[in-house]
Amino acid sequence: MTRLDLPKSFERARLLVTPVLAAASAELEPTLRRVVEYHWGWIDAHGERAESRPGKALRPALTILSTEAVGGEAEAALAGAAAVELVHDFTLLHDDVMDDDRERRGRPAAWTCFGVGPAICGGDALMLLAQQVLLGDSSDHRIEALSALLGATQTVIAGQGLDLAFEGRVDISVDDYLDMSGKKTGALLGCAASIGAILAGGRKEQVDSLRGFGESLGLAFQAVDDWLGIWGDPARVGKPRASDLRQRKASLPIVTAMTSDAPAGRALRDWMRSDAVVDDEAIERGIGHLESLGTEEATVALAQQQLGRALECLERGALDSHSGDELARLARFVVEREF
Amino acid sequence: MTRLDLPKSFERARLLVTPVLAAASAELEPTLRRVVEYHWGWIDAHGERAESRPGKALRPALTILSTEAVGGEAEAALAGAAAVELVHDFTLLHDDVMDDDRERRGRPAAWTCFGVGPAICGGDALMLLAQQVLLGDSSDHRIEALSALLGATQTVIAGQGLDLAFEGRVDISVDDYLDMSGKKTGALLGCAASIGAILAGGRKEQVDSLRGFGESLGLAFQAVDDWLGIWGDPARVGKPRASDLRQRKASLPIVTAMTSDAPAGRALRDWMRSDAVVDDEAIERGIGHLESLGTEEATVALAQQQLGRALECLERGALDSHSGDELARLARFVVEREF
Repeated sequence: MTRLDLPKSFERARLLVTPVLAAASAELEPTLRRVVEYHWGWIDAHGERAESRPGKALRPALTILSTEAVGGEAEAALAGAAAVELVHDFTLLHDDVMDDDRERRGRPAAWTCFGVGPAICGGDALMLLAQQVLLGDSSDHRIEALSALLGATQTVIAGQGLDLAFEGRVDISVDDYLDMSGKKTGALLGCAASIGAILAGGRKEQVDSLRGFGESLGLAFQAVDDWLGIWGDPARVGKPRASDLRQRKASLPIVTAMTSDAPAGRALRDWMRSDAVVDDEAIERGIGHLESLGTEEATVALAQQQLGRALECLERGALDSHSGDELARLARFVVEREF
Repeated sequence: MTRLDLPKSFERARLLVTPVLAAASAELEPTLRRVVEYHWGWIDAHGERAESRPGKALRPALTILSTEAVGGEAEAALAGAAAVELVHDFTLLHDDVMDDDRERRGRPAAWTCFGVGPAICGGDALMLLAQQVLLGDSSDHRIEALSALLGATQTVIAGQGLDLAFEGRVDISVDDYLDMSGKKTGALLGCAASIGAILAGGRKEQVDSLRGFGESLGLAFQAVDDWLGIWGDPARVGKPRASDLRQRKASLPIVTAMTSDAPAGRALRDWMRSDAVVDDEAIERGIGHLESLGTEEATVALAQQQLGRALECLERGALDSHSGDELARLARFVVEREF
C-alpha cells in the first residue's frame, strides 16, 4: 500500500471555492442555510462554528485545472467549480435520506439532525444555487456551461434512480452496474473536469477529452470506493469492516461475485436476498466468498483500467502540459491512495 | 355559494402543454418516468394506462394567457408553461414525502406506491427538466425566463423551509404566515403569470404587473385552500372534514385564531401543541373556536382582498384586453369557486 501526499490542487481549490459557496449559502432561507452549512462541516447541529473535517474538494480542483488546461485563469473557473460542488452536495443530502445512511464524514448525516424535510429542501436549494451561480457568471460561455451542468445533473439523478432500482436484485450484470456507476459518479466528474474548459472558451476537442478523462476517473473512483466498502481499514474509512456487505449493497465486487455460477457465487446471492442476521461470522464468510472468486483483484483491475483510460484522454486533449500533469497526479492520487 | 364554470383556458392549456410534458418525461430514466407519469395520472401503479382526474393546469393557463396578454402567440408560451408545471409537480412530489401526505388527487401519493427514494429522485428530475425545457426554447428571451424560473423556484423552496420550521409552533403571526404563503404559493404563480410575457418579449411594466397579479392570486388561492381545509365539503375536497385541524396544520384560520388572547384562542393553542386524541368531538370543538373568533370571515376577506389586488395589477399592466379579461375570469374562478 502506497501513501501518496494530498496534491496541492485540492487545498488550493478549497481556498478558492469556499468564499463562493459562502456567498451562495448566505442567500438561503435561514433554516435551510443551517442544514447546508452543517453538511459542509462549518457549524454544528446547534449552529455553533465547527471545525469538522471538510470534503476533499475533488470536483472544484478538477474544474479549476480544466480551465488552466485550456489556458484560462483559475478565477474564470470559480462559478463552475462552485456549481459542481453544490450539485455534489445536493446529491449527498438527498442520497443520505434515500439510502437511510445515518452518517456522513464521521458525523450524523444532516437529515438525522434536522429531519427529512429540511434535508430534502436543503438539497433542492443547493441544486438550484448551482445553476444560479453559473448563470450569474460573466463568461460568454456560461449558457453552454449551464447546459452541460443540467445534462450531467440529470444523468446523476438517472444513475441514482437505477441504483435504487437495483436494490434487492441479485441478477445485475457488471455492465448494468458500470452503466449505473458511470451515470451516478462518472457524469458529474466528467462535468467537473470539463466545465472549467467550457467557461474559458476551450476548443471542442479539449472539452471532450477532459470530459472523457473525468468520466473514466469517476468509474475508477467508484471502483476504489467499492473496494473500500469491503476491504477498507475501518479506522480510516470511518465505517465498520465490509460495510457494503453488512448493508447488502450491490457494489462492484458483490455484483461481480453474484454473476458467478460457482458455489461461492450462489452462496452470496442467497445471502444477498435473505434476511439472515448480519453477524461477524456471516461477514467473514461473505468476504471469503468474494475473495475466492477473485473479486478483489477484479475491482482493483477495473479501477486501474479506468485510470489508464482517463490518462489516455488527457494525452489526447492538446492541453497545457503543466495543468495536464496536475490532472494526472490528482487522478493517480484518487485511485491509488489506498492500494 | 356560486358555482362557476371551468374557464376554457384551463382545458386549452392542458391540451397544449401535455405533448411538451410527454416529450420531456420520455427523456427520463424509466423507473423515474414511471413515478412521474403515475403522479400525472397517466398510468397506474403497475404501469398500465390510466384515466385519472388530471390537475387543473392553472399554471400553464396563466403562462399562455400572459404571452397573449403582451401580443404573443400561445405557441411561444409552451416551454414556459411546461416549465412552471414541471416545477409545480416537483414541489408536489417532494412535499408529499416531507409532509407525510399519503394521498394526492384522490389516489395514493407517488411515494407510497414507489417508495421515498424514487419519489425524491423523480422530483429532482422534474425540477431539472423544467430548466432544460426552457433552455431548449428558441425565444431570444429564454435566459431571462430561466433566471426568473430559478429565482421563483428558489423562493418556493424557501417557503417550504419556513413551512417546515413552523411545524409545532403556536406563536406564528399572520404576517409570518403570509410571508411563508407568498413564498411557497405566490412566487410560482407570479412566475407562471409572467414567464410567458418574458418569453414573448413583453415590456418590463407588463411583466411586473403580470407577476404582481400572479403573486396576489397565489395568496388568494392559498387562503381559499386553507378555507377548504376547515370548511370544505369532504366529498368534494377528497379529505375528511376539517382536515387541517385534524393534522394540526397551521393554516391561515388556525394561525389567525392562535394570535387571539380570547379563551377560544388559548384553547386552540393548547390543542395545537397537545397530543390529545383527534376525535370528532375535538374537531367540532376546534371548529367552534375558529368560528367564534371570526376566522372564517377573516380568511374569506383575505382571499377577496388579494383577488382585488390581483385584478388591480391587471388593470395597470397595459395588456391586451381580451387576454386580460381571460386572466381576470380565471382568477375569479380560482378564488370564488367555493364561496
